[in-house]
Amino acid sequence: MLTWVVYDISDDKARKKISDACLDYGLERVQWSVFLGEINSNQKDELALKCKNLMDTESDSVYIFPMCKEDFKKVVLIGESFDKEYVSGELDTKIL
Amino acid sequence: MLTWVVYDISDDKARKKISDACLDYGLERVQWSVFLGEINSNQKDELALKCKNLMDTESDSVYIFPMCKEDFKKVVLIGESFDKEYVSGELDTKIL
Repeated sequence: MLTWVVYDISDDKARKKISDACLDYGLERVQWSVFLGEINSNQKDELALKCKNLMDTESDSVYIFPMCKEDFKKVVLIGESFDKEYVSGELDTKIL
Repeated sequence: MLTWVVYDISDDKARKKISDACLDYGLERVQWSVFLGEINSNQKDELALKCKNLMDTESDSVYIFPMCKEDFKKVVLIGESFDKEYVSGELDTKIL
């Protein structure tokens, strides 16, 4: 399922490990703190657990959310993206 | 419709104006660069245009995306949120 990961992590090392974990699961970086890609439900749970162990749960936050294809068609991307081609080409997103 | 706004804006003033615009439309801040709330389609287009005018489209990016209630139930929030009560209470999100 198409899944977004959006995080707000204060510690540099923890943030790097979480971004590495996202990449390991095959997610694409679409902003500095935003990843997007296809993962299954088990992978989503594993990634959530990894994040929880790495982050400071008192001050940091991570959102992991799946999105149906129907909603994805309504995404508006404005400006530059790390992977504009990925986002626009494969996923039928509106780019302003 | 329930809508996320996620931005990556380098200029402090532009970022502040965009965050103000999100708040003006009644969105809630759920991370430093992430807003969530109910806006209609016209408001979504207006907000997208405002962002486009304020940001540097060469280097910055803004994602605006609606999410159906069904998908929202699958959102996983890990750690602290600006508005955990808002996100968890009203919107039936799983919190780790």
